[in-house]
Amino acid sequence: MSVLIDFSIFPVDKGTSVSPYVARVVSLIQKSGLDHQLGPMGTSIEGDWPEVMAVVDRCFRALQADCDRIYFTIKADYRKNTDRRLHGKVRSVESKLA
Amino acid sequence: MSVLIDFSIFPVDKGTSVSPYVARVVSLIQKSGLDHQLGPMGTSIEGDWPEVMAVVDRCFRALQADCDRIYFTIKADYRKNTDRRLHGKVRSVESKLA
Amino acid sequence: MSVLIDFSIFPVDKGTSVSPYVARVVSLIQKSGLDHQLGPMGTSIEGDWPEVMAVVDRCFRALQADCDRIYFTIKADYRKNTDRRLHGKVRSVESKLA
Amino acid sequence: MSVLIDFSIFPVDKGTSVSPYVARVVSLIQKSGLDHQLGPMGTSIEGDWPEVMAVVDRCFRALQADCDRIYFTIKADYRKNTDRRLHGKVRSVESKLA
Repeated sequence: MSVLIDFSIFPVDKGTSVSPYVARVVSLIQKSGLDHQLGPMGTSIEGDWPEVMAVVDRCFRALQADCDRIYFTIKADYRKNTDRRLHGKVRSVESKLA
Repeated sequence: MSVLIDFSIFPVDKGTSVSPYVARVVSLIQKSGLDHQLGPMGTSIEGDWPEVMAVVDRCFRALQADCDRIYFTIKADYRKNTDRRLHGKVRSVESKLA
Repeated sequence: MSVLIDFSIFPVDKGTSVSPYVARVVSLIQKSGLDHQLGPMGTSIEGDWPEVMAVVDRCFRALQADCDRIYFTIKADYRKNTDRRLHGKVRSVESKLA
Repeated sequence: MSVLIDFSIFPVDKGTSVSPYVARVVSLIQKSGLDHQLGPMGTSIEGDWPEVMAVVDRCFRALQADCDRIYFTIKADYRKNTDRRLHGKVRSVESKLA
């Protein structure tokens, strides 16, 4: 019953170099123990719905502590009775490439 | 301390006519009592962070009941010490148009 | 053959008050003559695919002139043999609300 | 002057198994010669603005040929005078993790 999300979050009031804030968030995602993959435009996270929402909540609150403006996006894909899709989806597409 | 989100959610396993499912979700947003505005590509919702997350959670579970695949997107904009931005942001832009 | 997009674009290097830049973009969308609707989290634009892409291109270049970092998101919904969906989609959902 | 996008596109009228369509799109991205990285929730693509827009255009038209409803999302991050960010952004974050 896993949900797979792409999650990106950053402060808008800290200028153009936001990687320290992104690192703070990625550290929380790592501590969650959920399967995840860091990408150039966001982090993919897979888990049960309440677990995934709880991680998003912790990441938001961690930036809220010292950021006055925060922007984030989530894209989510839920598919019943599936799991281990973080790597499986890419493999499924790759197997169909010539 | 409000957060403003754009939220869109729909089943991917029900063919091209998904408005009954979108209506189910919008009905839950209305019942939440949070300030919101229905748009052609998503619904804007404004409220305190935990309230907004709770509505997203209810909407997802309402579709999960009978949908095997669900896709959703959230764009969120948080700005410290602000509220009533659902209409204020549009007015702020309009006031700057020639 | 219309495509409907939700489009949001803003500079990340100009601090928290980005409404002058958003107004510049909205002004270009208005001049395009395409059907559009300004919302709190983005602008919905409807038109033929090449027209819609051309507006996105003009908006990006208008910010690129004086912004060193730009973030934007597009959500697009294409449905064959349809048009006038900018208002039609909302009406379709509203008609299904109790 | 590179722009980095996260791009995801899929038909909504073909049921839940959309990987053949995603493979068609990924094949076009590969042929473009642009730096890219396939992920579980989208493909990251880096290049000059007109090149990146041209790939998005080709991918959309390739699905339009036989899909009646298409959904896609783009997240874009432009930063002046930079390139090779597809891998650089992840490394920058990882270097800041404890």
